[in-house]
Amino acid sequence: MNLLLLGPEDLVAPGRARLGGRRCVHVREIHRAEVGDTLKVGLLDGGIGSARVVRTDPEALDLVLGELDQPPPAKLPLTLVLALPRPKVLNRVLASATSLGVARIVLLNAWRVEKAYWKSPRLDVENLRQQRLLGLEQAGDTVLPELVLARLFRPFVEQALPALAAGTRCLVAHPGAGTPCPRSLAEPVTLAIGPEGGWIEPEVESLRGAGFTPVEIGPRILRTETALAALVGRLY
Amino acid sequence: MNLLLLGPEDLVAPGRARLGGRRCVHVREIHRAEVGDTLKVGLLDGGIGSARVVRTDPEALDLVLGELDQPPPAKLPLTLVLALPRPKVLNRVLASATSLGVARIVLLNAWRVEKAYWKSPRLDVENLRQQRLLGLEQAGDTVLPELVLARLFRPFVEQALPALAAGTRCLVAHPGAGTPCPRSLAEPVTLAIGPEGGWIEPEVESLRGAGFTPVEIGPRILRTETALAALVGRLY
Repeated sequence: MNLLLLGPEDLVAPGRARLGGRRCVHVREIHRAEVGDTLKVGLLDGGIGSARVVRTDPEALDLVLGELDQPPPAKLPLTLVLALPRPKVLNRVLASATSLGVARIVLLNAWRVEKAYWKSPRLDVENLRQQRLLGLEQAGDTVLPELVLARLFRPFVEQALPALAAGTRCLVAHPGAGTPCPRSLAEPVTLAIGPEGGWIEPEVESLRGAGFTPVEIGPRILRTETALAALVGRLY
Repeated sequence: MNLLLLGPEDLVAPGRARLGGRRCVHVREIHRAEVGDTLKVGLLDGGIGSARVVRTDPEALDLVLGELDQPPPAKLPLTLVLALPRPKVLNRVLASATSLGVARIVLLNAWRVEKAYWKSPRLDVENLRQQRLLGLEQAGDTVLPELVLARLFRPFVEQALPALAAGTRCLVAHPGAGTPCPRSLAEPVTLAIGPEGGWIEPEVESLRGAGFTPVEIGPRILRTETALAALVGRLY
């Protein structure tokens, strides 16, 4: 946690916050913060600054907030269209994409996404939010990336995606595509990344029909979370 | 598993292999391979080709090998000097670095590496090998990256590192460095990545003394495995 992220519910009085639960435990046990210490804090959807610890006990952490007047880091102009990963991988991928500064994440169905993945408790709204909050805390950001669930591949790609991706460079990661992924772009990008085992050819064709160019980053097949970070590192 | 990796101990007769254990279960349950199916296989430190399944039962998988005459993908000319991650993270980072094609990995001590990390059973030779094998299977590679354990920061950085890094571009990832990490290099690189919480200043000074330039990839602080893949994606 490189930033303690505060929500409106944490603000108990003007300039004062009280935290319980996970964040309180983390600040006590990992940061080993004591009364008088200063922590880097940010307001959800707001600015970043520092806060002073004025009380710490097992149930609560009380903070006096300084000016939270520094802006969060800019998002990348990047929409990620990601075939829904296995539940075990989903949490890490959401936190990782958020920490990298992805502005919008679409979780999309695909032929090689097992149906059971859509029924995982990890798809609960609360967990999807929590993983993105962890990514913000990691990166020192305060603004949640937008999240869209698209449970039907074809209607999403044919009807919703063209509008969503309008005005952006549209790329689909596809090992063996032959075309190398471009580098160091300044323009907005919509990047589609397939499931374990990859997109099937009709899916690549649908994406091509929606304006996406298949690209690759070499002969190695990478896990979703590795491919995602490597592609972002290359694109921006 | 995008490649079934065979060791010399798996070769029971010329052109025949028998597998048990994890790989046998994986091929049966995940690939759902049956007699007559063809699998992509590679020989450890050797070539890649295909094999036909001739027997599959709960204990063993028998394969008849074709010509294993395709070369593995080239390694990146990259040595990674990584502050030893938390045990929980170590396995993923080793597999991920291997899958990305890193040629050599040094696990290094640092001020913010907890002493207990060096006593984790995950540092057993067998596990360190296993995680790299998983990375090879993921990426379709057959050559293990070299692995070096450096339990003392100063002697390693002052005495061993200059020789190890000779003739390479030496970079240390350091958020706030001010200098952006270079892009799209063709030359060999030695890249140092710090622990959670970062390098302390005397460590950065030691690395600078060994010829390393501090670089950054933006204002966001990333987890080790995310930073690693993003940096590799940017460098090559």
